[in-house]
Formats: sequence, C-alpha cells, structure tokens
Amino acid sequence: MNSKNFIALLTDFGTRDYFPAAMKGAILSVCETAQIIDITHEIEPQNIRAASFTLRACYKNFPPKTIFAAVVDPGVGSARRAILVETRDYFFVAPDNGLLSFIFNEDENQNAGVKNFARAFELENAKYFAQNLSRTFHGRDIFAPVAAHLANGVAPGEFGKEITDSICFEENQPRKISDEKIEAEIIHIDRFGNLITNLTRENLPEKFTVQIGAQKIERLQNFFAEAENAGEVFMIFGSAGFLEIAAFGASTRNILNANAGEKIIVETRARS
Amino acid sequence: MNSKNFIALLTDFGTRDYFPAAMKGAILSVCETAQIIDITHEIEPQNIRAASFTLRACYKNFPPKTIFAAVVDPGVGSARRAILVETRDYFFVAPDNGLLSFIFNEDENQNAGVKNFARAFELENAKYFAQNLSRTFHGRDIFAPVAAHLANGVAPGEFGKEITDSICFEENQPRKISDEKIEAEIIHIDRFGNLITNLTRENLPEKFTVQIGAQKIERLQNFFAEAENAGEVFMIFGSAGFLEIAAFGASTRNILNANAGEKIIVETRARS
Amino acid sequence: MNSKNFIALLTDFGTRDYFPAAMKGAILSVCETAQIIDITHEIEPQNIRAASFTLRACYKNFPPKTIFAAVVDPGVGSARRAILVETRDYFFVAPDNGLLSFIFNEDENQNAGVKNFARAFELENAKYFAQNLSRTFHGRDIFAPVAAHLANGVAPGEFGKEITDSICFEENQPRKISDEKIEAEIIHIDRFGNLITNLTRENLPEKFTVQIGAQKIERLQNFFAEAENAGEVFMIFGSAGFLEIAAFGASTRNILNANAGEKIIVETRARS
Repeated sequence: MNSKNFIALLTDFGTRDYFPAAMKGAILSVCETAQIIDITHEIEPQNIRAASFTLRACYKNFPPKTIFAAVVDPGVGSARRAILVETRDYFFVAPDNGLLSFIFNEDENQNAGVKNFARAFELENAKYFAQNLSRTFHGRDIFAPVAAHLANGVAPGEFGKEITDSICFEENQPRKISDEKIEAEIIHIDRFGNLITNLTRENLPEKFTVQIGAQKIERLQNFFAEAENAGEVFMIFGSAGFLEIAAFGASTRNILNANAGEKIIVETRARS
Repeated sequence: MNSKNFIALLTDFGTRDYFPAAMKGAILSVCETAQIIDITHEIEPQNIRAASFTLRACYKNFPPKTIFAAVVDPGVGSARRAILVETRDYFFVAPDNGLLSFIFNEDENQNAGVKNFARAFELENAKYFAQNLSRTFHGRDIFAPVAAHLANGVAPGEFGKEITDSICFEENQPRKISDEKIEAEIIHIDRFGNLITNLTRENLPEKFTVQIGAQKIERLQNFFAEAENAGEVFMIFGSAGFLEIAAFGASTRNILNANAGEKIIVETRARS
Repeated sequence: MNSKNFIALLTDFGTRDYFPAAMKGAILSVCETAQIIDITHEIEPQNIRAASFTLRACYKNFPPKTIFAAVVDPGVGSARRAILVETRDYFFVAPDNGLLSFIFNEDENQNAGVKNFARAFELENAKYFAQNLSRTFHGRDIFAPVAAHLANGVAPGEFGKEITDSICFEENQPRKISDEKIEAEIIHIDRFGNLITNLTRENLPEKFTVQIGAQKIERLQNFFAEAENAGEVFMIFGSAGFLEIAAFGASTRNILNANAGEKIIVETRARS
C-alpha cells in the first residue's frame, strides 16, 4: 500500500444527496487513516464511457498505490460482477461494465513502453462487504469497504478469484479510410464545450485538417489565448494527450452543435 | 474523541462562494489535525427538512465520535439558539431549528434496539466562538470553531448548559386510515428524481400497492435494472431504508409531477 | 511551513471534469503529506475578479503558512508569467494576471494595522514543474507541483527571481462626488443573489441610504431574519466585511436586475 492510503472516488451520484458521504463514512469506518480524494461525482448519470474517459485522463497523476473506486453502475443489484483490477502501480474497484477496459486496452496498445500488467479479480468475498448488503447501493456496501480493506493491506486475491473475461469495450481507434483520410471520433466533451477526439500526436502527420459536419478546421494552436477572436474554432493538443477541437472563450459544442460519439474526418494532405 | 478528529459538514452554502472554505479554514485554525469531510453544501437554500433527511440517511456510516456540523440556518443572527447534541456515538452542532430532531425521534421510536441517548446543550460560551462574531455567518463564527474545539477534546458541558426543550419536528409517521389503507408521505426527492417515502419494511405487509395522485403502482422491485422498459415506474426499498417510488433511467418526479410533502395511499390488500 | 502542509485550491475548472483531480494527484505525487482543501472550482470561467474576491474573502480564516493555489488563467501557455507571492502569513501561487493584486492593495491601504509584507517571485525554475509541461494546463503542470514543493519546504527564492512589477488591478475605491454623495460599486454577487459592494463600515457614516438604478434602499439590518416580508430589499454588513444589498428568502440580483461592476450612489444625509 501507499503509506498514505489514498482512495480516489469517481461516481455519478451528484453532490447534493447523501450518496458520496455514505461512501466516505463507510471507507473511514473500515480504514480510519484513508485519505479520500474526490475525482468527481458529476459523471452524467449512467454514462460509463464518460466515467472511463475521466478516470483515464487523470489516474496517472496520482501517487503509486492509489486506490480508485469508480462507481457508475446502472446494473447495480443485477448479476453484473464487481471487480478489482490491480496494475503495476494502482488498484481500481468498479462494476464489471467496461468502465475499466481502458486499462487493458492500454496494455494492448503498448509497444516498447512500460506495461500496466493488469490483472482482474471478482469481488465475491462477502467478508469484505457491508453486513446489510443492499441491492441498490453497492458504492456504499461493496466498493467503499473493499477499497478500505485494500488500503488496510488485504491482498487482491483475498477478495475473490482472478478472472480473465472482464468486460472490455473495444476502443474506436482512428482508422485510415483512404490514402489521405482518417476517420476518427469525438470521445468526450468537457465542461467548457471542448471536443476531445481519439487522435494523438502519434496518429497524425505534421500537417492536417479536420472535417466535422460541414465545418473544416485548419488552424492548429499551441495554447488557447493564441486565438485572435472570441468564438474562433481551432485544433489544439489538449492536456489529456488528445487532439481537441476548441474555441477561445466559447463552447465549441454549441458553435458546431457536436455530440460525443460523432465521427470526424482527418485530411492528411499538406495544408495549403 | 475519535483519534482522527473527523468533522463532517452539511450546509446550504453552495460550492461557488467562499462560505464552505471559510468554515474549513476556521476549523483548521482551531484544530489543525481535523479531518474534514464534505457531506454536501447543496441542500436547497433554507430547506431544513431536506438537511435533516440527508444527514439522517448517512450519519451512521461514519466512524464513532465523528462530529457533524449542519448549517441550514434561515434564522441566523436572531434569537434562535445554537445547539450541540451528543449521542452515544456521535456529536452534532447545528442551529436549534428542528434540523436535529430526527435524533430525538429515533430514540422515541426505538423499542428493543440500541438507543441514541441524545442530550442537547446550548452553545453559549463565547470563549469558543470567533472573536469578531458576525450576525450573518455563524457557520464560520460559531459552528466551525465549536466543532473544532470538540475535536480538541473540550467536553460538551463546557459550551453551555444542558437543555431539554430543543426544537423537535413531529415526524409524519404513516397512519392507518382504514382496515386496508395507510396514509403515508413523500419525505424527500433525490437528484435522480426518486421519491423517498416515510414507509419502512416494518410499516408494510408483504403485498401492497401505492396510489400517488391518479397513478397506482403495483410493481415492487429488488434492484433498478430489473425494470424492463426505461421510464417504467416501480417501488423499491432504497438505500436509506425507506420505500421509494422510482423509474429506470428516468426521473419519477417528472413522470408523476410529484412533490416533497405530498401524501400517498398504501393499499394493503393482497395484490391480484 | 505549517506542520500540516495545507494547500487550498481555487479554480474555474468546474467539478465534472478531471481537472481538479489532476491537480490533486500532481500535488500528492510531490508531497504525499499535503492536506488539500477545495475553496471552490466553480469560479465563473475566466472571471479573474470573481476569483480575487472569493480568495480575499476567506484566506485569513486559514492557519498560518497555508499555501493557496489559485488558477483562473485565460492566458495559459502565452507569455503571461506565473508567480508566487509570499506574505507574513501565507503563500499564494497564481498566474500573473491581477488575481493576487488584492494582497498588494491591502498593504497599501493598511495604515496602523499589520501589513502583509507581500513579495512576489516569478515561477521560472522548470525543475519544480511537471516534466512534460503542457501549454494548456498549468494548474496541473506548474501551480500544483510548485505548491507541493513549497509544502516540502523549498524556499520561495528557489522558484525564480523576485519581481516588483506583478500585475495589480487598481481597486475601485468608493469616491466622494459631492458633500453628501459617494459613488461606490457592486464588486460581486453571491449564489443567493446578494450584491456585495466595495463599502466598509469605515467608508460610511452612521446614517445613509443607497441608490441602485431607480431603487432607493433605506433599511439597514443586522441579520437576515430581521426582515418582515419575503422579498423585501435591505442593506446589511455581510460576513466578508462589506456592505451588501440583500433580500430575505429571495435573490436581490433578480429583484433589482443588478450586475457586478454596476455603480451605486450612497447618500450620507441623516435619514428621516
């Protein structure tokens, strides 16, 4: 364990009800030295992909051995499994609904770099759950106490058997559709209305344009304030490592009427 | 005291202004080892009953000796008293406006179970308040420093005299209105639009239906994902221990146009 | 340093994305004993004056040696400097865009009282920044690690040279426009719709009225619940030390259709 027992929470519970507090109480009742960090509780209700993106974008900023409890769980109480994923550096507990698939995908996409060496365990040992297990709030009754027991030093294998069939979303990787065209996707839209794509520097030549709906975007900026006019739409490599479509002092989502999941076309000809 | 000095905050101050931060600073200035946990700061402004429900629904998840500071305080600066309630397991500080009445009501409704043994003290010893006491922000100037002094080990009786007339709301308990009918009430609506009633398993036979406005609800589910169609309205025993009227992937509040405080009728005939 | 390494965060990043969490992870990766406190992440995007007001209204409630990281940063990635301001009691890191000018202004306006003795340093030593410095997220890559290194005991001068030309807004002080009139300003509007002015008790005689638009306000209250009718508009000295225009159980902003920055006129004749 990390000496400080960091437990970071990500849920769709919102911040006006008792749900996050009940998780925190349940954690501290098992491990009073836990240091709880809120990532966010404002994932759009039941949006597993938004939860995945958000966790993926920040987990590597945390100290080694941080425990992440990610609860976006439309299937709570049904036969869906609960899992613990251990990697070289971190622990994750979550429902087995694809939320953590990015960890396994990162391992697969990794070439020369350092692998995560992810292993999954099914949470099935009721000894580590709340005594009065509800069927509607596993955040409080399973994920919080399991995270706290992990912080107390319980070994991953104690919570249940290792499994190799946890649910993995296929990631929509950008794909070449002609010599000069790549089809890519908007994977997330942030609070400012910036559109985050699945394109990284490695996917792209030095010069390219992006077509989104009827709009062609040619300008690639290094930082936001480089824009000359408020409302001007441009491309920028964002802080999560992906190409973003952004606008200075305005919401690109509103300007372009764009949606998460929407396809975009990259043209890789040298720009004129 | 608990060795970790947990202080949990619940207010209607919102999260965009300096109000919660001022309370946190005031706590840490008195007790630098306090571990502050936000329950929520988004109680609907001045909604004492919503504050009561939210605190009641999660306080037992916290470790023994946790100190709760609950500040929903429309009468701040007036003659309303400020109180400290000590129970077997916890401490609470709040304005004396009914917010904490559930603690005393729980003792009264308790039969064979473990009582809270609640005692109330009036906060009147200005030694434990901010030096420049405002008349508009007792969260910062009274409740925060008192909670911090409690965490430092000051005994409840040091803050003021014991009182036995703190304000208690009468709880609207479900009541039998005929052999086959119980009148009950919606006591809270959560962010997802679920309607929480004042009915527990103990109030109800095995089979029953609920009438809310013109709508009769017959289906009782064990978990949310059991519903077959999005938008289908059903009953479920929720994570706070009460019967809830819920809908899968939709807001019951919107579907039924329901309000907190609204009456509902339970029919206890065996369902056909 | 304070023995507890308090680091308080104030940003306009919102709470639904990964931005605050990335800052927290970056802090804890450098200083695992840091105690992070959220002031707010809901400053209106890019509203430097609102950030200034909010920080100014609560920083003195925090224990000595608290480190404040304030990131409202429309110029991120451009040539704008990043600064550290050290005062007698606190440390502040922020973009050099006027956000911290209130500290220097407080020193100037201070007469007999205790000065802040503020000194500014430019953050330029990349040794204390993230290794892969982005041009879009200095909250994570500069301000968070610098705050954490400060908490670890690195001396202010290690981060860069002392500067004396950091950007300072001129504060709009109330000004006398005739024998009986003072022109003042609404400097902030809080979540409840209260209008906070730049007037303090020191600026005002015992009796005065305020004109805002077509509305004349004569009633000065000591606390909110003193009002007789909901929606009644009155004046009150608020918890941040300024005169506020408020209404009981209603939003003054909506009632008076008022805006931050709007001028108001104080009439200092004895009220009839």
